[in-house]
Amino acid sequence: MPRVVDPERRRAAIAEAVWTVIRRDGLQRASVRNVAGEAGLSMGSLRHYFSTQAELLRFAMQLVGDRARARVGALRPAADPRRTAERLLRELVPLDEERRAESEVWLAFTGLALVDPAQRAIHQRIHDELYGACVTAVTLLVDAGLAPTGLDVPMEAARLHALVDGLALHAVMRPEQVSPARIRAVISRHLDTLQARPAAGA
Amino acid sequence: MPRVVDPERRRAAIAEAVWTVIRRDGLQRASVRNVAGEAGLSMGSLRHYFSTQAELLRFAMQLVGDRARARVGALRPAADPRRTAERLLRELVPLDEERRAESEVWLAFTGLALVDPAQRAIHQRIHDELYGACVTAVTLLVDAGLAPTGLDVPMEAARLHALVDGLALHAVMRPEQVSPARIRAVISRHLDTLQARPAAGA
Repeated sequence: MPRVVDPERRRAAIAEAVWTVIRRDGLQRASVRNVAGEAGLSMGSLRHYFSTQAELLRFAMQLVGDRARARVGALRPAADPRRTAERLLRELVPLDEERRAESEVWLAFTGLALVDPAQRAIHQRIHDELYGACVTAVTLLVDAGLAPTGLDVPMEAARLHALVDGLALHAVMRPEQVSPARIRAVISRHLDTLQARPAAGA
Repeated sequence: MPRVVDPERRRAAIAEAVWTVIRRDGLQRASVRNVAGEAGLSMGSLRHYFSTQAELLRFAMQLVGDRARARVGALRPAADPRRTAERLLRELVPLDEERRAESEVWLAFTGLALVDPAQRAIHQRIHDELYGACVTAVTLLVDAGLAPTGLDVPMEAARLHALVDGLALHAVMRPEQVSPARIRAVISRHLDTLQARPAAGA
């Protein structure tokens, strides 16, 4: 009797294997051969899903966006808009192993995105989505009266987005200093300052 | 008569070649052979300076820190401390071709730094130096009365550092949106908000 294979489960297993290889050995080692070995599949089986390394790497990078998007999409607004904004931003930074894996894979791909147009396009789409999430967070606070109505929303969203991505980078590269507790405190402090009014004469 | 070679000039030419290859073709192409070709040197000449690709790549990454450090070290305080802080931070973000090259090379190396301990150590040293520059900027503002004396300096430096590195990342990956003018405005706005007092009830 032929073995029945669930294609979705197999793709998920391949995804896990490609992330494992990237995080442990680096992007340059994520060949079709090495990923097949990690997933316990034959080269033939893996090639049924991904015929080239480039295809496999596009899939691995797209998955970063897919997973963050799924988590953000599943969020339900809290009673307190400030809390909603904070929860939204926390989905974008490495506060647990799942988000840490995403941040590491995302960073592993930045170098490739500089020289590979297909990877760059995926990277930019994720960038634009994260910027959109920051617009949402800032707008929530303005609408709730937790930030001044005159706020320059595109500017504040760009500032918040840079902060969030910088925190993700630092948490991955310098976890001894940029701990989850520090990240939460920095985001909270940042949202506090949005609420502040300029000092007289500022 | 043997040709006299100035070793410092030759190292500088090699540095330029390795950065060119990394920015144009990616880190994985920056082999001793390709860099020798780009610099117009024989493999033997290049091996006189760098015997392995790993050594060449450590040199290329260290240079990012060396150049930023040299620029920051050459800064003279302005009469206005706010202006001094702003100048210092501007040295760390891609506002011109020179700083853009540094940011691109730095980003190209982040993936390698995740899996290569020697690269990670260089990356972390640069991280710590940039954090130090952010402590300096925040302290300048506090000492000048341009930020509250009760400010949590390590927290504010971590926040500013994440902002600066996030801006560098975005300027490289999404230059259409994160232009030099936008970067300058975001940094300026950020320093403005350090000056602000919390709204009543915040």
